[in-house]
Amino acid sequence: MQNELKSIFEPESIAIIGCSPDKKKIGGRPLDYLMKYGYLGSIYPVNPNYEIIEDMKCYETILHVPSDIDLAIIALPQKLVLPTFLACIKKSVKSVVIFSAGFSEIGEEGKKDQEKITALAKKHHIRVLGPNCLGLFNVSKRMYATFSTILENEEPLPEGKIGFVSQSGAFGSHVFTLARQHQIGFSKFVATGNESDIDVADCIEYLIHDEKTSVIACYLEGAKDGNKLINMFKLAAQKKKPIVLLKVGRSDVGMHAAMSHTGSMVGSDSVYDTIFKQYGVYRAETIDEFIDVANAYAELPRMKGDRVAIFTVSGGVGIMLSDQVIENGLTLPETPQDVQNHLKSIIPIAGVKNPLDTTAQVSYMPTLLEDFMKAVLKSRQYDAAIVFLGFSGLKPDSLSTKLTSLIHIKQQFPDIPCVIVTLSNPEAKKIIHDSGLVSNEDPTRAVKILSAMNELRKSKIHLEKACANEEMEVPLVQINQLMSNHRKALTEFQSKEIVRNYKIPITVEKLALTPTEAVEWANSIGYPVVLKGMSPQILHKTEKGLVQLNINNDQEVKDVFNQLKTIIVNEEEAAFDGVLIQEMIKDHSIEMYVGAKRDPIFGQMILVGLGGIFIEVFKDVSMRKAPVSPMVAKEMVEELKASMILKGFRGKTRYDIDSLCNLISQFSFVISMQEELLEEVDLNPIMVFEGSKGVKVADALMKLS
Amino acid sequence: MQNELKSIFEPESIAIIGCSPDKKKIGGRPLDYLMKYGYLGSIYPVNPNYEIIEDMKCYETILHVPSDIDLAIIALPQKLVLPTFLACIKKSVKSVVIFSAGFSEIGEEGKKDQEKITALAKKHHIRVLGPNCLGLFNVSKRMYATFSTILENEEPLPEGKIGFVSQSGAFGSHVFTLARQHQIGFSKFVATGNESDIDVADCIEYLIHDEKTSVIACYLEGAKDGNKLINMFKLAAQKKKPIVLLKVGRSDVGMHAAMSHTGSMVGSDSVYDTIFKQYGVYRAETIDEFIDVANAYAELPRMKGDRVAIFTVSGGVGIMLSDQVIENGLTLPETPQDVQNHLKSIIPIAGVKNPLDTTAQVSYMPTLLEDFMKAVLKSRQYDAAIVFLGFSGLKPDSLSTKLTSLIHIKQQFPDIPCVIVTLSNPEAKKIIHDSGLVSNEDPTRAVKILSAMNELRKSKIHLEKACANEEMEVPLVQINQLMSNHRKALTEFQSKEIVRNYKIPITVEKLALTPTEAVEWANSIGYPVVLKGMSPQILHKTEKGLVQLNINNDQEVKDVFNQLKTIIVNEEEAAFDGVLIQEMIKDHSIEMYVGAKRDPIFGQMILVGLGGIFIEVFKDVSMRKAPVSPMVAKEMVEELKASMILKGFRGKTRYDIDSLCNLISQFSFVISMQEELLEEVDLNPIMVFEGSKGVKVADALMKLS
Repeated sequence: MQNELKSIFEPESIAIIGCSPDKKKIGGRPLDYLMKYGYLGSIYPVNPNYEIIEDMKCYETILHVPSDIDLAIIALPQKLVLPTFLACIKKSVKSVVIFSAGFSEIGEEGKKDQEKITALAKKHHIRVLGPNCLGLFNVSKRMYATFSTILENEEPLPEGKIGFVSQSGAFGSHVFTLARQHQIGFSKFVATGNESDIDVADCIEYLIHDEKTSVIACYLEGAKDGNKLINMFKLAAQKKKPIVLLKVGRSDVGMHAAMSHTGSMVGSDSVYDTIFKQYGVYRAETIDEFIDVANAYAELPRMKGDRVAIFTVSGGVGIMLSDQVIENGLTLPETPQDVQNHLKSIIPIAGVKNPLDTTAQVSYMPTLLEDFMKAVLKSRQYDAAIVFLGFSGLKPDSLSTKLTSLIHIKQQFPDIPCVIVTLSNPEAKKIIHDSGLVSNEDPTRAVKILSAMNELRKSKIHLEKACANEEMEVPLVQINQLMSNHRKALTEFQSKEIVRNYKIPITVEKLALTPTEAVEWANSIGYPVVLKGMSPQILHKTEKGLVQLNINNDQEVKDVFNQLKTIIVNEEEAAFDGVLIQEMIKDHSIEMYVGAKRDPIFGQMILVGLGGIFIEVFKDVSMRKAPVSPMVAKEMVEELKASMILKGFRGKTRYDIDSLCNLISQFSFVISMQEELLEEVDLNPIMVFEGSKGVKVADALMKLS
Repeated sequence: MQNELKSIFEPESIAIIGCSPDKKKIGGRPLDYLMKYGYLGSIYPVNPNYEIIEDMKCYETILHVPSDIDLAIIALPQKLVLPTFLACIKKSVKSVVIFSAGFSEIGEEGKKDQEKITALAKKHHIRVLGPNCLGLFNVSKRMYATFSTILENEEPLPEGKIGFVSQSGAFGSHVFTLARQHQIGFSKFVATGNESDIDVADCIEYLIHDEKTSVIACYLEGAKDGNKLINMFKLAAQKKKPIVLLKVGRSDVGMHAAMSHTGSMVGSDSVYDTIFKQYGVYRAETIDEFIDVANAYAELPRMKGDRVAIFTVSGGVGIMLSDQVIENGLTLPETPQDVQNHLKSIIPIAGVKNPLDTTAQVSYMPTLLEDFMKAVLKSRQYDAAIVFLGFSGLKPDSLSTKLTSLIHIKQQFPDIPCVIVTLSNPEAKKIIHDSGLVSNEDPTRAVKILSAMNELRKSKIHLEKACANEEMEVPLVQINQLMSNHRKALTEFQSKEIVRNYKIPITVEKLALTPTEAVEWANSIGYPVVLKGMSPQILHKTEKGLVQLNINNDQEVKDVFNQLKTIIVNEEEAAFDGVLIQEMIKDHSIEMYVGAKRDPIFGQMILVGLGGIFIEVFKDVSMRKAPVSPMVAKEMVEELKASMILKGFRGKTRYDIDSLCNLISQFSFVISMQEELLEEVDLNPIMVFEGSKGVKVADALMKLS
């Protein structure tokens, strides 16, 4: 696949169709950029209105170009795009970038034209970026196939290690410009526009294999093919190329608005969020964070643990940084005693415990910073450092002294990531960047950077664990035959029959079709029992009075049977499927919820939380894409605040977490084998017993697609 | 009080003791700043080593100065400070700033000297700022009594409307420098250092009365006198001077670490947080937010509602802004249909619903932005606007066109706060600021600004409501006499007796000292009953087996009485206080928790949450400083996630919230009248019944100070 995109990211020859000598026009800009920034491949202007543009021969059509073409840029009015694309196919052009707008973004009419492009691209094996896209560029090749104004006055240098793929041209341009102000460069930049052919996942795949790219930054509005995206996330993790992603569209989902039982938990943005976490993709919430983290992943060595040392020239900022370090899940170990003694001998008024406060003395003792850092870091008790230098960045002399120290420290401790915090002007930013150091103006952002470095470290561990286990399980019996006779929604009895087939423990129960049968089953189960009226049309049994607890003798069983049957029969359009006779659970237990929900993009998701109303009140729910191993199920349970209760809260007994995790894992394989068939499943409540006494599904509800 | 601080903030005459001709020395800097920036009052250098400094007569001691002195600056070695301070007193100097370090910050020795300063200041009515402080300045008077290097090369202009008080000089200097980079100015700047006399609350009081100050920014590490601070917060609210505050030291508290029952909820930082919210102080979490919000409060008109219009040149940023607007509790109403039609007629491809996407066309149609904004805002459906302009700020022509539009809009809609988002360089920042507009480089920060504007609006409403009600309640009977005979911790019976005296409903119950009495009480209450063994030394009754539910007849009562008594008597050092015979509650109810906790700084705090273990598992607790009116109690209940359950979740019955709120309010008055006596109270559980069936305290525990 990546070879196919080579012609678009690394073309040896480019035709610009609709080329213009006017550098302000979208057909003029690519030519201007390619020429003035020194592209080394061949350029072929195409435009029937010109014979020569910029001293180059201009061709009437693409078919008139005498050589082979890797990449054709189409910068023409909408109505000319299709015929031109056909000509490109005829010419055997390898790939095309379509700048032109007027396709799916304008409605039905444009959508039809775009579908033609998609079909032709597939048929003729020609790759298409766009339409309605800003194009792309490749800094090391000086290949600028874009009409973005961000290159108008300045080439995108320095070249960086971040490959950037954006679903929005305007967003991408903004991010690029902001990054440039901070001396942060990119290796490749690509805006995917309407994605008639090449989509974000394709570009990620290319960047994974691109040697010039070490970090992939991605702006996403939505994916069409969830599994394709997940496969790229997995490949990136495997190839150790971190992905930093900014996805918008959280509020649209209205996770909090939709209050239907599990529906409220699985708004599609929360599914995206789950997928990103599950496959080790860092999700940034703001543009600043997006750039900061991408740059840190590109420039800093990997963190090996979570222990941070704070060096500061202000006690106050030191305290603030400490707060934020702790709140971001990092630790702040105290400096070893011998190091403290040593530091006190250098300067008695310093704070030596961590945060390490050099005080304003740092301005009068040029070696103080280096002495402090060296003494602390060589203790090998720290995995990262933050250095707060106040407004030194605005004072060239002061900055220069400090950078000298920091460069020494970097040479001595090349494996310890260090983020400098200082106010700075553009000159200072350039000096710091050219020194190979990472800096930020805001202390909070520096902490966020280390937090992201720590997430990367943890996601690596977590992915290794998850991948090692995904293979462990063997697919079970096919579910289809069990389901084929059933209706759109299954009764509790039917749902639990299916679940039981997969070795998931359920309550002891039998379905009775007559009062006599009911008495027989009740006696075989043993009193007291529970009676539940079954009808596939009545999903909320309790509300209709179809659940009767604590039935103690034969006569009661008969009476209640008839009573439940009457309720169902009197209900319009409700079929009577019998009465379920069920054991009454008396052992001490806690009620949990396990559910499945099919996401239209990413497929079957599995959820766990407290049973009853608490899942809705406290939104304390953990989700993964199914299937999950018991080990990942345990991760899910441990993410819950409610895990405190399961673990035996305040001296109380521990509940059988292992059995719950086995159930989750088992059930996740069941649903993942039924990607298309199952719409939604609730196992609610599941009784989790104390110690190692197991679990039992007490009620279940399956909705089919 | 503010008149006393006038001599320090607005002195007509300043003596600099320890004055130096060397502008790099701390005794040289104030003179340099005062002279070069044009202070108009009298300056008197004092130093026995010089006869003349900078063409001015230099005096041997302060006593040699021939005129009255408003403010003396002491810039001398520690050991000379006390004798010099005494000389200042003799000279009847009105106020003193002590730069010198070596006082309470270095330990016991320095603390003693500082206490002498405090005592002398009180005795002689001389006001002291410091010691160990950076000093202060007053921009409109060009009065710079500081040795901060931030003024070395540049006067702090433009003058702004933000009065800034900082407990840390280094932190203050950093914030000042960062603000200056963003063209944000201050009216006054004061660093309070060791606070031997003048503290943060004093400075806030001065700034409240200062006409040049419209917003107070405050950096806080900790307050010694909570009530003094609260009084200033109240005064500021009354005088409509918003306070923006950054407090550090959150993690030290270890709110999550300490897991003792209510203790875990009342780490002192969460008390600070409560106090800030309760008295309408905006707490910033980062330095950027601190500056952004202070500036917005100073420059923007007040928001009248929560409805935001987003204008954007990028669809992607528009979606991102929408997400963040919603997540920050603001609303994003759709544009009225007629306005949508009008906008579509201007430019068909625009997004016209809100976010309003002008698209890149804004670059080609100079009036587009103004046309859009005018059409939308004149509908009067919006209370604020965000305008995202991408990187226009970096292109002078583009910026100038847009600023012209934005100035027109500001003139036409002066009551609608508008935040511009654009990348910008220092020149652009200055142009935008000089146009009287507020801008930011990051969209997320712009949303945070409007969110803070909305908080200010809401805190105004909330303070009016709270203040209107604080007077409503009448103090009740003094509690002391009830308590005077009791021990360090009270039994459930004793605690509830006190509570009952204040008309708070409790379970029906009587204390039995003999089995016969027990039977008598059980019969008068009616079976079944609950028996609880009482001992002031045993606080956790259930763990010791001292609670027996569901006792059904006389014989059982006798047996259980004896059993409970034996348990207590066998417990070492536990006194037997009798057995409580209590009604067994059968009506449907929900268990809530109401508690009190005395904070060492701010006094009695009142808390509410779900009863049982959920308060600890989900940390779903609401807190206020006591007392609170029933209306504020209702606010507290509504803050809880658990309020969903109280309000009647998913078709279930509503519980008696009003009675709960009355209980909270009543109880809050009880504890606030016992500021010193009560250490901690738990009413847990409180049974809240359905509908309007009231509440009952089922168990209570009081610990005395």
